[in-house]
Amino acid sequence: MVNIQNSTDLYGRYLELFQKIADVKYAAAVLQWDQEIYMPVKGADSRARQLATLSEMAHNMFTDEKIGQLLQDLLERNDLPVNERRNVELSWYDFQKETKLSAAFVRLQSETTSRSFQSWIEARKANSFAIFEKDLALVIDLKKQEADQRGYEAHPYDALLNEYEKGCTVHFLDEVFSSIRQPLQDMLGKIRQQPQVNDSFLQQYFPREEQWAYGMALIKSLGFDLEAGRQDMSEHPFTTNFSASDVRVTTRIDEHDFNSMTWSCIHEVGHALYEQGLPTSEYGTPLGEYASLGIHESQSRLWENNVGRSRGFWQNQFPALQHRFPAQFKNEDAASFYKAINKVSPSLIRTEADELTYHF
Amino acid sequence: MVNIQNSTDLYGRYLELFQKIADVKYAAAVLQWDQEIYMPVKGADSRARQLATLSEMAHNMFTDEKIGQLLQDLLERNDLPVNERRNVELSWYDFQKETKLSAAFVRLQSETTSRSFQSWIEARKANSFAIFEKDLALVIDLKKQEADQRGYEAHPYDALLNEYEKGCTVHFLDEVFSSIRQPLQDMLGKIRQQPQVNDSFLQQYFPREEQWAYGMALIKSLGFDLEAGRQDMSEHPFTTNFSASDVRVTTRIDEHDFNSMTWSCIHEVGHALYEQGLPTSEYGTPLGEYASLGIHESQSRLWENNVGRSRGFWQNQFPALQHRFPAQFKNEDAASFYKAINKVSPSLIRTEADELTYHF
Repeated sequence: MVNIQNSTDLYGRYLELFQKIADVKYAAAVLQWDQEIYMPVKGADSRARQLATLSEMAHNMFTDEKIGQLLQDLLERNDLPVNERRNVELSWYDFQKETKLSAAFVRLQSETTSRSFQSWIEARKANSFAIFEKDLALVIDLKKQEADQRGYEAHPYDALLNEYEKGCTVHFLDEVFSSIRQPLQDMLGKIRQQPQVNDSFLQQYFPREEQWAYGMALIKSLGFDLEAGRQDMSEHPFTTNFSASDVRVTTRIDEHDFNSMTWSCIHEVGHALYEQGLPTSEYGTPLGEYASLGIHESQSRLWENNVGRSRGFWQNQFPALQHRFPAQFKNEDAASFYKAINKVSPSLIRTEADELTYHF
Repeated sequence: MVNIQNSTDLYGRYLELFQKIADVKYAAAVLQWDQEIYMPVKGADSRARQLATLSEMAHNMFTDEKIGQLLQDLLERNDLPVNERRNVELSWYDFQKETKLSAAFVRLQSETTSRSFQSWIEARKANSFAIFEKDLALVIDLKKQEADQRGYEAHPYDALLNEYEKGCTVHFLDEVFSSIRQPLQDMLGKIRQQPQVNDSFLQQYFPREEQWAYGMALIKSLGFDLEAGRQDMSEHPFTTNFSASDVRVTTRIDEHDFNSMTWSCIHEVGHALYEQGLPTSEYGTPLGEYASLGIHESQSRLWENNVGRSRGFWQNQFPALQHRFPAQFKNEDAASFYKAINKVSPSLIRTEADELTYHF
């Protein structure tokens, strides 16, 4: 490495390297986005290896010993502005985590995940777990290996949980969930004893094209910047981004369930608004990235539930909705709609819409 | 590098390295594809740097001195099967060309080209050359620098021409074109003295959705494998590929000109059939790539003109076409249609459709 004299040069070098690593990671994200939305089926094998190579390269760039040395040099400086210092600290933390995995392992895991995505799609279409079973076993096995390589104190899943929420543990989450289990069951019991809300009007026929047009208007009204992002259709709704100025959401449409698309749009836009709001000046640094997946999900849930299921929101939105679907909502008003979308009933997954789950 | 004992190991190492370089190049192609079709406008800056990083990395991987050594070691072997030997020879030729450019230059050229693409799009929409002028000047200046770096004997453009068609020169092309100039002018003169074919029925209103549906049916009928490719809309029709199993074509639609989409579909599918026909087993090697852009264009023109403007093709296709657009073609038959699509008239660019040009 060249002989660097002052912190500004050193931090400039840090930025240059980390922005290039980000370029490769975001490039991989573009390939993944395409894989889930537009890629033809026979492209799966070459795409899996292309993604594996990008993952391997990003890993190699990041875990280069020159990066470790640069970060240590920067940590020794005490003249860095607070934002720069924080970036370096967080990068150092990530560096230590990343160096625990080998390039070969990163490559194998990336390739296996891509391939298993294809069999998951097939399995989902054929409604056959058998198609996905073998690949799922491979993925789980690699995740177990990853936990071992990353290291943990109490529980293997702690190592993986740490990737989503730093410092979070199985023990901590078990305590949280066990403490809310009984109160929730009590509440559900009371709800079940009450007359049930009629939400059957949400399960009428809502044509695909009109739902799509409504979804686009909805995400625009929520503040999603369509010059810095776009919405497409995918098997499974998700949000991804290639910078704060290029954030992609996806949705899906069930013509016989109004809930499916609508709350996936609101949920994903919650994620997207968080990404679009990140500082573009911090491209490639930890401060330009989401803080944690917990924080990310808090943003999507805030919009989905606190806004998207609120009375105030639909008092404002319902007339436009009724105008777009006059036949379906002719007997409803904002109040009955508000009640219906907040109906509580137990199901195997968290949302009312049968198949609505999220990448995050 | 590890000590390698036999040609099989050595060639295996060659394959491994060149397939990874191909992964990075194809990843860049995915980013370019997205840039031209789906990317939101504000994504331009981050996309330009992501593409620049991938170009720089592919260049660095390829020009690594270990690659040069490996190729030389392989060239010294006389026990390589003929296909493997040919791959190594072609890679060695490419290696020598690529090492003439610096990584910084490759990065700058990639970034400048991406940015100029954005201003070209803007300029095209605003029909204003001024918007594109400055970026175009930058691109041309870099192309001149590239010619100097690559080297040439007679004419700077020879260096650039060699990238498209090995060994081709300005002098050779000038001879070709000057020898056909007079005979073509004579032929055009004779055509102009004849009564002109009426092709005005091709400039009626052809709704976008129906043209799209027709274009999809058309490319399928030509043998384009939609499980190993797809078609999208773009400002400018082009073909790209991310392997022989994932070939993407684009088209555009002019609702007042039937020619525009139809022959761009046929032309691009000509390119695409060539790419889909390349051997998947040669992924990442020269034998898995198109031979030259001249050969590539020969395939697109074969389909566009020799097939797509032939009497036999439309004798077969015309009934389906008439069925899709009954009002527009009610007074026509295969013979009058065949005549109209072969009407010859001088224009500023090669095709009858005003704005139809090609990436290649």
